[in-house]
Amino acid sequence: MFFHTKRLQFEAKPEKPDPVYAHKLQELLGGAYGEMTVTMQYLMQGWNCRLPGKYKDLIMDVATEEIGHVEMIATMIARLLEGAPATATTKMAMADPVVGAVIGGMDPQQAIVSGGGPLLADSNGYPWNGRYVIASGNLLADFYANVAAEAQGRMQAARLYNMTDDPGVKDMLKFNLARDTLHQNMWLKAIEELQSDGLEPLPVAPNAFFEEEHAEHASAIWNLSEGDEGAQGGWASGTQPDGRHEFSYYMEPRALGDVAMPPPPDPKLYDTYDGSLGEPRGPVLGTETGPMGKIKDVLS
Amino acid sequence: MFFHTKRLQFEAKPEKPDPVYAHKLQELLGGAYGEMTVTMQYLMQGWNCRLPGKYKDLIMDVATEEIGHVEMIATMIARLLEGAPATATTKMAMADPVVGAVIGGMDPQQAIVSGGGPLLADSNGYPWNGRYVIASGNLLADFYANVAAEAQGRMQAARLYNMTDDPGVKDMLKFNLARDTLHQNMWLKAIEELQSDGLEPLPVAPNAFFEEEHAEHASAIWNLSEGDEGAQGGWASGTQPDGRHEFSYYMEPRALGDVAMPPPPDPKLYDTYDGSLGEPRGPVLGTETGPMGKIKDVLS
Amino acid sequence: MFFHTKRLQFEAKPEKPDPVYAHKLQELLGGAYGEMTVTMQYLMQGWNCRLPGKYKDLIMDVATEEIGHVEMIATMIARLLEGAPATATTKMAMADPVVGAVIGGMDPQQAIVSGGGPLLADSNGYPWNGRYVIASGNLLADFYANVAAEAQGRMQAARLYNMTDDPGVKDMLKFNLARDTLHQNMWLKAIEELQSDGLEPLPVAPNAFFEEEHAEHASAIWNLSEGDEGAQGGWASGTQPDGRHEFSYYMEPRALGDVAMPPPPDPKLYDTYDGSLGEPRGPVLGTETGPMGKIKDVLS
Amino acid sequence: MFFHTKRLQFEAKPEKPDPVYAHKLQELLGGAYGEMTVTMQYLMQGWNCRLPGKYKDLIMDVATEEIGHVEMIATMIARLLEGAPATATTKMAMADPVVGAVIGGMDPQQAIVSGGGPLLADSNGYPWNGRYVIASGNLLADFYANVAAEAQGRMQAARLYNMTDDPGVKDMLKFNLARDTLHQNMWLKAIEELQSDGLEPLPVAPNAFFEEEHAEHASAIWNLSEGDEGAQGGWASGTQPDGRHEFSYYMEPRALGDVAMPPPPDPKLYDTYDGSLGEPRGPVLGTETGPMGKIKDVLS
Amino acid sequence: MFFHTKRLQFEAKPEKPDPVYAHKLQELLGGAYGEMTVTMQYLMQGWNCRLPGKYKDLIMDVATEEIGHVEMIATMIARLLEGAPATATTKMAMADPVVGAVIGGMDPQQAIVSGGGPLLADSNGYPWNGRYVIASGNLLADFYANVAAEAQGRMQAARLYNMTDDPGVKDMLKFNLARDTLHQNMWLKAIEELQSDGLEPLPVAPNAFFEEEHAEHASAIWNLSEGDEGAQGGWASGTQPDGRHEFSYYMEPRALGDVAMPPPPDPKLYDTYDGSLGEPRGPVLGTETGPMGKIKDVLS
Amino acid sequence: MFFHTKRLQFEAKPEKPDPVYAHKLQELLGGAYGEMTVTMQYLMQGWNCRLPGKYKDLIMDVATEEIGHVEMIATMIARLLEGAPATATTKMAMADPVVGAVIGGMDPQQAIVSGGGPLLADSNGYPWNGRYVIASGNLLADFYANVAAEAQGRMQAARLYNMTDDPGVKDMLKFNLARDTLHQNMWLKAIEELQSDGLEPLPVAPNAFFEEEHAEHASAIWNLSEGDEGAQGGWASGTQPDGRHEFSYYMEPRALGDVAMPPPPDPKLYDTYDGSLGEPRGPVLGTETGPMGKIKDVLS
Repeated sequence: MFFHTKRLQFEAKPEKPDPVYAHKLQELLGGAYGEMTVTMQYLMQGWNCRLPGKYKDLIMDVATEEIGHVEMIATMIARLLEGAPATATTKMAMADPVVGAVIGGMDPQQAIVSGGGPLLADSNGYPWNGRYVIASGNLLADFYANVAAEAQGRMQAARLYNMTDDPGVKDMLKFNLARDTLHQNMWLKAIEELQSDGLEPLPVAPNAFFEEEHAEHASAIWNLSEGDEGAQGGWASGTQPDGRHEFSYYMEPRALGDVAMPPPPDPKLYDTYDGSLGEPRGPVLGTETGPMGKIKDVLS
Repeated sequence: MFFHTKRLQFEAKPEKPDPVYAHKLQELLGGAYGEMTVTMQYLMQGWNCRLPGKYKDLIMDVATEEIGHVEMIATMIARLLEGAPATATTKMAMADPVVGAVIGGMDPQQAIVSGGGPLLADSNGYPWNGRYVIASGNLLADFYANVAAEAQGRMQAARLYNMTDDPGVKDMLKFNLARDTLHQNMWLKAIEELQSDGLEPLPVAPNAFFEEEHAEHASAIWNLSEGDEGAQGGWASGTQPDGRHEFSYYMEPRALGDVAMPPPPDPKLYDTYDGSLGEPRGPVLGTETGPMGKIKDVLS
Repeated sequence: MFFHTKRLQFEAKPEKPDPVYAHKLQELLGGAYGEMTVTMQYLMQGWNCRLPGKYKDLIMDVATEEIGHVEMIATMIARLLEGAPATATTKMAMADPVVGAVIGGMDPQQAIVSGGGPLLADSNGYPWNGRYVIASGNLLADFYANVAAEAQGRMQAARLYNMTDDPGVKDMLKFNLARDTLHQNMWLKAIEELQSDGLEPLPVAPNAFFEEEHAEHASAIWNLSEGDEGAQGGWASGTQPDGRHEFSYYMEPRALGDVAMPPPPDPKLYDTYDGSLGEPRGPVLGTETGPMGKIKDVLS
Repeated sequence: MFFHTKRLQFEAKPEKPDPVYAHKLQELLGGAYGEMTVTMQYLMQGWNCRLPGKYKDLIMDVATEEIGHVEMIATMIARLLEGAPATATTKMAMADPVVGAVIGGMDPQQAIVSGGGPLLADSNGYPWNGRYVIASGNLLADFYANVAAEAQGRMQAARLYNMTDDPGVKDMLKFNLARDTLHQNMWLKAIEELQSDGLEPLPVAPNAFFEEEHAEHASAIWNLSEGDEGAQGGWASGTQPDGRHEFSYYMEPRALGDVAMPPPPDPKLYDTYDGSLGEPRGPVLGTETGPMGKIKDVLS
Repeated sequence: MFFHTKRLQFEAKPEKPDPVYAHKLQELLGGAYGEMTVTMQYLMQGWNCRLPGKYKDLIMDVATEEIGHVEMIATMIARLLEGAPATATTKMAMADPVVGAVIGGMDPQQAIVSGGGPLLADSNGYPWNGRYVIASGNLLADFYANVAAEAQGRMQAARLYNMTDDPGVKDMLKFNLARDTLHQNMWLKAIEELQSDGLEPLPVAPNAFFEEEHAEHASAIWNLSEGDEGAQGGWASGTQPDGRHEFSYYMEPRALGDVAMPPPPDPKLYDTYDGSLGEPRGPVLGTETGPMGKIKDVLS
Repeated sequence: MFFHTKRLQFEAKPEKPDPVYAHKLQELLGGAYGEMTVTMQYLMQGWNCRLPGKYKDLIMDVATEEIGHVEMIATMIARLLEGAPATATTKMAMADPVVGAVIGGMDPQQAIVSGGGPLLADSNGYPWNGRYVIASGNLLADFYANVAAEAQGRMQAARLYNMTDDPGVKDMLKFNLARDTLHQNMWLKAIEELQSDGLEPLPVAPNAFFEEEHAEHASAIWNLSEGDEGAQGGWASGTQPDGRHEFSYYMEPRALGDVAMPPPPDPKLYDTYDGSLGEPRGPVLGTETGPMGKIKDVLS
């Protein structure tokens, strides 16, 4: 259960309204790496975390902070939209280049749909959606996803920082950048700790199947794009970060499988077919061994 | 430009058809962490890479391999669908639990839309889409995203491995698991090398803004969820992985910003408003300093 | 800013796991009228509310509660998935109708993607998205949307109530149903109060444009579908709920506009066209009256 | 079955083309509350209506009208795009602020994809989709959704009205505003009539489960956001609109449930887990009581 | 403007309810090639058609028919859902394979969301959306899209025909198949007529740019996939269907362009970059020749 | 499996950067008829093709070429974005109409998300998705879809050709236009050849069900839109292109079905209902004839 305080985690007050920037800032609210994504990703990871204790508590601490970041960006966008030209016509935009530039740079839905408020969408107006989040239950895999999300989010904040000269906006972004720095470091530290705690001992997720996977195919990078510069990297030889495998580079790779060909189709599907692959087999679905097969035998 | 060989990179031949498993395997083709995602993510990163040489070549090598993985999964799905019950009615499903289980477990579109072939969708039938990929131009940030994608992909392959007993399917998944292992290690190595090459020296992306960000907010994790277990982790004190910051834990955090309140609205937007916040300011858009302001002055 | 407690607002503990029901229950988490929608709808409305005081506080109280409802449903789904058959093969499903029914009724992504946890998606696996929420800034319009969302949500909860016999699930749904009842009543009361407070005096939103709209077209329902039963309702005559208009029924309606015809196209768009509509006009964009027109005159 | 007349329901003829406004007007065609939504929402409700007579006929009358509204907006958009600059280059836009403002304000797909015609998308280019409509079968719940849709639609039309000075566009919007006024009143009246007809007697949908829901949780609004202004509203005490419940305000709320914790995971899902929650239970799936259990007993 | 009659264009009455088939039939309602698509595609094409007369009238005749097809499928789905097990629990499904098969094969949202009615979605529950339709303004291009849509639609209807033995469902599908046959023929005929009328004289759309396109690249198919079977087809030599070009096959193709390499990035974007490509150029935006350039000269 | 060369299939080098055009060109990369669509459509068709030999090889040749077209457009977009104003503020845009026009015409995500590179999205920022592709297994139906895709793609390229005066961009588009011409002709030829080879003998897909479909409904176009111009076309009489049917025009059509009415609902779904349609029937699910029915009889 959650509680809400009235005050923002950090100040989100622009010196002046700027409706064009309000459009761009949507990326930090509803983009694939915006605050909604980390909020919901961490909440879902926290609720899916099977480890009572420090990991779960950490995730929930940060998840709860991120709801407040959505609040900060949403408030900032509304404030940037103060007094945005709600009644400017095309004629006015044509007659005055300043109005024209504002109209051209605004998000039309921020006025028409939200009445001067934020949207739950990115800077191209595409709505935020639940496929952006991952909460797999495996903390090692998910923490790498968290590092990646914080890194993209920090970069986007940095790019946006350069697109404004409003000291109030910059002040808020300096806070966001600092939090993204901390959170990247924090997830990196947590990745180390998962290993030192013996929970997920290897850098590769999941920590399973190393015996069963085809180990002979876990070493060589295939040189499938022209040029051999790839083989000049540290990934071309030596021990892999997991300490288990060696790197190599397969310079003139050959396909190992057979010719790619789907099977003969059922004629009732009306696929184009000349019979050259023969008749389709049916799936063999185990009826011969299960109770239904036995029952059928008994009944018939 | 690309060339295609007829043979698959690795064998993708089930011992027997299995239409129910063909449904689940869609996740590896068109899911958020399936082969389409890594294919398009690496292609877009390669095309967006501004560094001629080993990094770009590596990315393109792996990207080109991944197209072949989409081909393998697509072929496997078509083969698993061989002879799937294309004409089974509900009546048949009701009368025979085996048919019923197959109908219940199949993806209806694999028959109705694709005629016994794969879809460009995940295991819930949701289409693959371009928001799944990231190619930011910053290799450090993107390589973390690549590690994350390979980790999730490997985990999903491992989960799917346990849901079949078909030796042909397992054989292919053993190859996929091995490649995912290699690729995780490879991106981790490339992250190290970006730093040792002096290109992206710190573990935190982007390598910028450390002076400008509010450093005082880059240390403390805020304890916003009940319980203090979070402070028992290695992220509660000590030096952060970037070597620049210290960790701390802020146990009784207080909001730093003002009360979250949007500004007074333009009355022509018909927001509910009682006037208590005053009249909206308009954005100050710099016309007074630019050429248009001067021109207007001259003309008026 | 938000705080989190460890305990759920209300108990969410099934007596027994039930992976098939966990699939259906996704509708209450990530459906168009699920808990994510009301959470984000109320948060966005609260952040967009321009009235300090009781309305804003009410919205934020309920919004904050709804985050906790997402938490409850997410926890319930994870618990319903306990021990779900993660390694059942198609062969096992075919051989045992019980396994077959479970596999057929499960959401494949709850296992493959979430590792036995919830998705941010509805019961057809479609991700929750930001276009589901509305926060227009006009409280009267938005509160009607809130009533509608709570009504659909309550109905879906009621339907789901009948699809389980687990006392723990039913116990949670009884709480949800009660909250939905309260929240419907609450928004209906708030609609009344907006009017008694003189903020949005009419039942029709927005409270504007009554003078300007074509009043002669605000009375008659057009009988465009065969049959005259529609005219037997209370909406066929008498005063409208807004107290401003009369109802009538237009029984043999005729179109008032001209023939629907787009204008002649620009030939460079390659629309099929025989010239019969003449040459296209260009937009008249006001250059003759604005500063740019004057400048051009001066310069030329 | 439907018939079409050539003439528009009402005139949709701009005085002058205006490609920038054509972009914004997409919101009324393909937005979440545009004409496509009410068209398909009412059609689906009409087809799903189980009551022969006045309600079904009303719904179909209005649904059929709305198809004609899509036609009006589509025609208006095409006319506004007449002569839009199809061959203007960036160089021209840079050299002439008027062209620049037009290019910046246009929807690129209206030219590139539709050849100067409308899209089935909103003002941010996001396609209309079927999750926008609701047709639950419960008329009370659906009519509230209809009121909400007409209210948002009317507000958006009002906002768009202020963004043009074209008398032809304004004339059409005056008609649309009037129809939205009527339709709001009409659905409000129909809500009353559902109750006076005894079909859906209470203002809360669905009219069921009042005995079973946890009545003790249907009264109190929880004060989860800082501040007690919420308790100053009419929803803090007194009888609820349904006449069944009393309002109260729970000022210092405490969570009622247990600690949110998912169950122990199946190890084959590779969730991170230390065993502290024990082994997972399996779902108890009733085989002991059904015919399959008996059959298995007999066979084994 | 449209009118509605109460009767369906053709009978849509199943002999018996069948909730599993109701799930599959969603494909014909809301799939990419279902009735919603042709309805909206033809409506948008008709409204975008710039030719008064036979073509526009034909499109509108067929478009109006298709709305009635959506109505037929929607009605059929509701009837197939009659008495579908709305209260069946998982326990019942487990205990009775017949119930289990029904639950496994049903669309959960048809019950939970629509109360036993259709969804505006396809057979995987993905909502219909506006990107499925095309109305480019060029009738030749659009009529090919219409042929394609009717062909896919007819094939899906044929596949669905084989998945039922209900005589009422089959009767309706026989009508749909016949209409799809007619409509395919009709659009093929209309393509011929566009050419015989001299409106779009060539089989290739648009009828433009033949002089300007690089004619030397309009002949040869590039042999980019291993094997030379492609060159055994009629497309390997001889005159092309447009009568303008010759076919050839380029057996050992070589890339014609330079190395794919993006330009040097702006350092403020934080792309990884070592400077080896030099400094980025800025766009040259024509200010030197336009009025703004002149004004700036004057003012400075 | 695939291989990659470093050089582009054809040159993609603009004379000058042009960030506004880079926005529009996204349509050819990630639009519904852009290069991603034909790439994935042909790959999926090739992998789904059940005919070893010339058809499959042709499809794979062209599919492989199309990956290279995505590469060309992606590279062109990155080059057009060289030096795009990454740090321009709104203030600068307001003060200088040239900057204002650029900011207004740019895609914000090309800077914020991609760091000056392309997106996998269309010119309105909507992501490419897998529902755009079709690979039905029936080559006749799919080749018509391919003709349609190439026709729309060629038209969009033609429209975009007119929106630039950059000789490098025009040079690339001349190549694309030529390839689209060839590919349209090629698929048209392949449609002929499918018939001359006896694989899909009729122009109507699928080549099945002509006996079973209601032949009496395969002739007449229904005159459902006002006006009789439709009957003046060649589709109003004479033999249909398939050589099997005659055309006619049904001038005063009447509905053939019964009144559209869904069945009585299950009361547990809470649909509004007055009982006038009686009680719902349950589906008859065949238990009386199948093994389960017999087993139940034996057991009870």
